[in-house]
Amino acid sequence: MRTVEWDYTQNKVNLIDQRLLPGELRILSLNNYFEVAAAIKEMVVRGAPAIGATAAFGMAIAAHQSDARNTKEFQSDLKEASEILGSTRPTAVNLVWAINKINLILLNADLTVEELRIAVLEEAQRIADEDVIINRRMAEFGAKLIDDGDTIIHHCNTGALAAVDWGTALGVIRMAHSQGKKIHVLVGETRPRLQGARLTAWELEQYSIPYDIITDSAAGYFLQSKEVNKVIFGADRVAANGDIANKIGTYPLAVTSCENGVPTYAVVPFSTIDFSIYSGWDIPIEERDPEEVLDLKFRSMPIAPERATARNPAFDVTPNKYITAIVTESGVIYPPFSENLKHAFRENSIG
Amino acid sequence: MRTVEWDYTQNKVNLIDQRLLPGELRILSLNNYFEVAAAIKEMVVRGAPAIGATAAFGMAIAAHQSDARNTKEFQSDLKEASEILGSTRPTAVNLVWAINKINLILLNADLTVEELRIAVLEEAQRIADEDVIINRRMAEFGAKLIDDGDTIIHHCNTGALAAVDWGTALGVIRMAHSQGKKIHVLVGETRPRLQGARLTAWELEQYSIPYDIITDSAAGYFLQSKEVNKVIFGADRVAANGDIANKIGTYPLAVTSCENGVPTYAVVPFSTIDFSIYSGWDIPIEERDPEEVLDLKFRSMPIAPERATARNPAFDVTPNKYITAIVTESGVIYPPFSENLKHAFRENSIG
Repeated sequence: MRTVEWDYTQNKVNLIDQRLLPGELRILSLNNYFEVAAAIKEMVVRGAPAIGATAAFGMAIAAHQSDARNTKEFQSDLKEASEILGSTRPTAVNLVWAINKINLILLNADLTVEELRIAVLEEAQRIADEDVIINRRMAEFGAKLIDDGDTIIHHCNTGALAAVDWGTALGVIRMAHSQGKKIHVLVGETRPRLQGARLTAWELEQYSIPYDIITDSAAGYFLQSKEVNKVIFGADRVAANGDIANKIGTYPLAVTSCENGVPTYAVVPFSTIDFSIYSGWDIPIEERDPEEVLDLKFRSMPIAPERATARNPAFDVTPNKYITAIVTESGVIYPPFSENLKHAFRENSIG
Repeated sequence: MRTVEWDYTQNKVNLIDQRLLPGELRILSLNNYFEVAAAIKEMVVRGAPAIGATAAFGMAIAAHQSDARNTKEFQSDLKEASEILGSTRPTAVNLVWAINKINLILLNADLTVEELRIAVLEEAQRIADEDVIINRRMAEFGAKLIDDGDTIIHHCNTGALAAVDWGTALGVIRMAHSQGKKIHVLVGETRPRLQGARLTAWELEQYSIPYDIITDSAAGYFLQSKEVNKVIFGADRVAANGDIANKIGTYPLAVTSCENGVPTYAVVPFSTIDFSIYSGWDIPIEERDPEEVLDLKFRSMPIAPERATARNPAFDVTPNKYITAIVTESGVIYPPFSENLKHAFRENSIG
């Protein structure tokens, strides 16, 4: 199945509970948009494209359950849903992007409530379907950057679980592997929530791609030892100048890979690029519950004193100078990113 | 008590079992030099200065238990012990340094077995006692680099637990705090074995120094946000040119701190400097059991697929260009390190 799907028999949203992987593959059925909002907030589902599609289906469930008697009431109900869904996580821009796409549908004031209900679900389904196509296209463009025999450091999870299917950076690896290229992946475990060790390792096993898990701070050692040929990751939001907000740890990884002359790629659909902000410093960075850092056991023992405190920023900003190229659905974009991203986006919108 | 001590009533080595902290403070009593070797290997005791003192006491226990009938047999017994103790961990040079100091005592061939036995224990005790004096001296020199109001990133554990007492980098922080400077420490958790979260946080609580634990890869975020004024760590071995082998993660941390113009200090006794090798690339780097990376539970769930594999280098090398200054027992050494370290060492040996 896909990471997130609309259940047409019950008009609900089904998704894989990513908190339980790799131990258990459980499908959660979400009954209303509050449950969808909670699932995004609690990281039952995560990854910028997957969050976008999930929020769109959240709007569809709100549309389905609204008992509005006229279009105006319906628009008001969905405005409420869009505010609740839109405030779940601040950094990934796909969330707002997807909700805005749904809101555009709602502006068709001459449609009846029932017609709008159908149009909203159709748009949500289109967002999900297009995500799969876009990810596949990025995978094909990106795979050309990968050489036979490459050892690749990958950060966080950017696979099928982070999107509707295929994924971004991991999609590239999967595509290169399927083309017969011999690849070894060093999987950054991605503290605090260990999406690398838990999810990326699990996905790589499904695709039979060889890997080793490493602690995030071991990346420097492997870059230094010249064992690594490429570094690749996704993004939660990209500024117009190509600065990249991504999972915490991306920035020191990119700085260190640049320092060692290792090509460093971000794989990013246009839905993740926020052309409304010029630089990465304007991207809001979510700081999450310290418990995510502290609730860990090493060899069954707690890892910190009982009353320990922690700080837990979920993302960092990698300035564009550390990025070799950005892989999008319209091709591989090289610096200067300010000009070339905008240009590629325009061409893609026309084409 | 000290991290490691000779038990004069039972002629054994007592040490704090650092694997159980912060949950439990248990003293282990080691009965023979094989147990001492195992304790070093299994990281019951860790930290370059502490490993040195422990190995010296390991030689003392071998000396105490040898049933040699003459000096030659005694030397042969202790040669065996020195080989077993010396091969426990490859990176920290204090291990070999301390064993070599004991072996120098053994060259006094005109002493009786009983006299040698006493001389070995005296030398081991001297190594331990001097370690405390040296660490205190480094703390005093280093504290001058710390300003009132500083926020400091600290990596791994370099406190009393990593030495006989006081510690290296954490000794500097403790001294600055005791001088009334207001300090906040961001404690890098230090995956895989979490010496930061487990040991440094625990020590900071003993000293009432405010701190927050951060994941290792969050350091970049805090350096970027200009919240951090200093970065400080110890070392397991320093080459003659000032390249520093230290706990895995030190290298990307130092690269990122330099990139942000944040002063980056290593606190290192001369016993950790290996003047026999010119550059850090000649320092052997230990790769430990992958299980240290994989045997982790987040919210009581395993963090990796059942058959996952991992790579686990325990140290990395930070080239000298990323180090602002090295704090030693004879003062703060600035670049060029090749000349200045040698000069300071000579002055210290004479003085």
